[in-house]
Amino acid sequence: MAAHYFDHNATTPLDPFVLEAMLPFMGANFANPSATYTAGREARRAVEQAREQVAAALDADPSEVIFTASGSEANNLLIRGFADALRTEGAATTRLACTQIEHPCVAEPLRALARSGWDVSEVAVNASGVVERSSMTALPMDTCLVSVMSANNETGALQPVADLGAAFKRDRHDMTCFHTDAVQALGKHPLSFRKLNTAGVDALTVSGHKIGGPKGAAALVRDRQLPLIPLVYGGGQEQGLRSGTENVAAIVGFGVACTRAVADLEMRTLQAHRLQQHLEAWLRSRGAVIFSAAAERLPNTTFAAFPGIDGETLVSLLDRQGMAIASGAACGSGKSGVSAVLLAMGVDPVLAKGAIRISLGMMPYGATSIEAVDRLIGQLDKVLSQLQRFAAVA
Amino acid sequence: MAAHYFDHNATTPLDPFVLEAMLPFMGANFANPSATYTAGREARRAVEQAREQVAAALDADPSEVIFTASGSEANNLLIRGFADALRTEGAATTRLACTQIEHPCVAEPLRALARSGWDVSEVAVNASGVVERSSMTALPMDTCLVSVMSANNETGALQPVADLGAAFKRDRHDMTCFHTDAVQALGKHPLSFRKLNTAGVDALTVSGHKIGGPKGAAALVRDRQLPLIPLVYGGGQEQGLRSGTENVAAIVGFGVACTRAVADLEMRTLQAHRLQQHLEAWLRSRGAVIFSAAAERLPNTTFAAFPGIDGETLVSLLDRQGMAIASGAACGSGKSGVSAVLLAMGVDPVLAKGAIRISLGMMPYGATSIEAVDRLIGQLDKVLSQLQRFAAVA
Ligand SMILES: Cc1ncc(COP(=O)(O)O)c(C=O)c1O
Ligand SMILES: Cc1ncc(COP(=O)(O)O)c(C=O)c1O
Repeated sequence: MAAHYFDHNATTPLDPFVLEAMLPFMGANFANPSATYTAGREARRAVEQAREQVAAALDADPSEVIFTASGSEANNLLIRGFADALRTEGAATTRLACTQIEHPCVAEPLRALARSGWDVSEVAVNASGVVERSSMTALPMDTCLVSVMSANNETGALQPVADLGAAFKRDRHDMTCFHTDAVQALGKHPLSFRKLNTAGVDALTVSGHKIGGPKGAAALVRDRQLPLIPLVYGGGQEQGLRSGTENVAAIVGFGVACTRAVADLEMRTLQAHRLQQHLEAWLRSRGAVIFSAAAERLPNTTFAAFPGIDGETLVSLLDRQGMAIASGAACGSGKSGVSAVLLAMGVDPVLAKGAIRISLGMMPYGATSIEAVDRLIGQLDKVLSQLQRFAAVA
Repeated sequence: MAAHYFDHNATTPLDPFVLEAMLPFMGANFANPSATYTAGREARRAVEQAREQVAAALDADPSEVIFTASGSEANNLLIRGFADALRTEGAATTRLACTQIEHPCVAEPLRALARSGWDVSEVAVNASGVVERSSMTALPMDTCLVSVMSANNETGALQPVADLGAAFKRDRHDMTCFHTDAVQALGKHPLSFRKLNTAGVDALTVSGHKIGGPKGAAALVRDRQLPLIPLVYGGGQEQGLRSGTENVAAIVGFGVACTRAVADLEMRTLQAHRLQQHLEAWLRSRGAVIFSAAAERLPNTTFAAFPGIDGETLVSLLDRQGMAIASGAACGSGKSGVSAVLLAMGVDPVLAKGAIRISLGMMPYGATSIEAVDRLIGQLDKVLSQLQRFAAVA
């Protein structure tokens, strides 16, 4: 299947090297890391080694890493956890913000807070889908939390988060939080929590299944000074911030996947970029509009539309040829309708209905080959010709 | 290791038959269930099939099953989710309750609600560690939520939850919730959500890794009328109650594990019960006190103390012989100190310090053999003799 899979932003194939590292923990090493006997202590060591791997990959300290089961959970933990902490500490301000292009697992917890009385605003992006520095300085001075993703899952547009964090923090007080959802950036673009943190970023989110790791492990990496209240209380695992028996195998796999996702990143970026240019040159030659074309983008992500051709239809015709791409509704690629990201960019809704997302594999395992891209181009070409013929007849 | 493992209430070895079912989803079938193409729809079908398996094992409807990553998350979802829903609907009452013997992942979210202004009480148990019917009718009429576990993780004491649920519900109004944490009961004692629900139980929690399934999958099974607000917002998975890309492999494994955990339950119960009697006869002959001895108990769980002998010491001496048992602090077996469950039962703290928990395997895979029990008895005997000799010298 992998040779016909072009939806790596939705999820990636599990790297067999990662699976190999996980299997002992689905076999003989099954103990609960909270147990005090030898097998328990070994499981604990495995979890802590994975924490070191995640931290090293992100240039963070292991004590800054909180494991969760998904990127969605990590984003919710940060947003609801920080808001709850502010409320508990009796903070006077109730202003929170994110951008108009965040993933639903950032936008929706904020909307839920809005329903319970918080003042939530959604910051606009420019026509390239990029957040501008001025929109940070324009936020009311008592805004206490902003979340700006590092790379958009649909367009691939990179956001200047270090700059935006610094702009947001300037002249603001201590009890503020700048968070970045880096789920799509990890393994595709350099990330240093140390540097981001110095610039003013307090927390970032990453997720295993987007980088050749397993579903079921993700992390919130955060400045330890940041007050947070847990979503899940109980046995006190993860520094009391996320209770529940650790998913040892998934955490171990996530650690290994992180190490691999940042190895040779520069070389993998070059390769992916070359394929992206090849693909996009062809798309343009066939009349496609490439969204966020003017922005700095992830090298694996192409979001495009052929005027007059429905995105869902293209996806389903390609599916019949055994090729997997996404339409304009990304990660939870299940929803139909028009991409909110494109609407935020001011794209004509009629054109937006045509959106398809092609996201290539650029992890050490499952990297898309030039042959695979050419096969996709070949099928797209056929399918487009059919559709255009139909359109001409109709 | 499994032959020397006597801590099945902390976690169980993963059933190789379950692993087998999971592996395709850690290989070729890696797609995101939200994706609309063929591979995505296949992943969706696998998740829904697992939901049917979990529902069938619990005599529930698939639509009543909400998958989470852990029992802890399911308990928090129910407790915080119902409390948040009440608050949102402007309910006048703010009274919640659980028992004094709940797992921290029930007790702690309630304590957190208490810190934010809810009125939370912890219901006492009798000397056998059992909740009495009178304690339910004694709860103030405006109590809106009670959580009573089906089986205690330390003592194994079974609680008469159907009765307690009915007692709690009598004369009370609609907006109440009776919940049971059935994490330790599944696969060890018959469970029918249909029957419990008819009696007045609105929701129950189960967890995969306690029944030969993987860590990383669990479920909240609940009456669909129950208002709940999610912990994790986002893409809207799990009926909007638990967003995030599904951990397909773990969910598939959990489904299979549930099916296996309820197969031949009667026979497995008889076998475990026989081993339990054998073990406890020997323990008593060596002067041990068995906690909750007078209660109906899980057939795999023995919680005991030798007067004058420290539980932690026993655990660590047995560990040196390669045998894994737990001391008096259960699931998160990591914490030292005295068991809160025993204190709630009125056990002398000095005796409680001696507590050790032996929990035998009784799932289709990893069932403890009589030979393994005898080896444990042999080692316990040696270690006890040593300790008693030391004590005599001192
Ligand atoms: C930008 C972004 N953030 C968060 C998520 C959610 O991560 P997870 O699927 O691990 O919950 C996704 C994808 O699903 C994503 O693309
Ligand atoms: C009674 C009980 N409830 C809940 C849990 C928590 O389940 P999980 O480890 O899946 O979070 C446990 C064990 O850890 C338990 O014994």
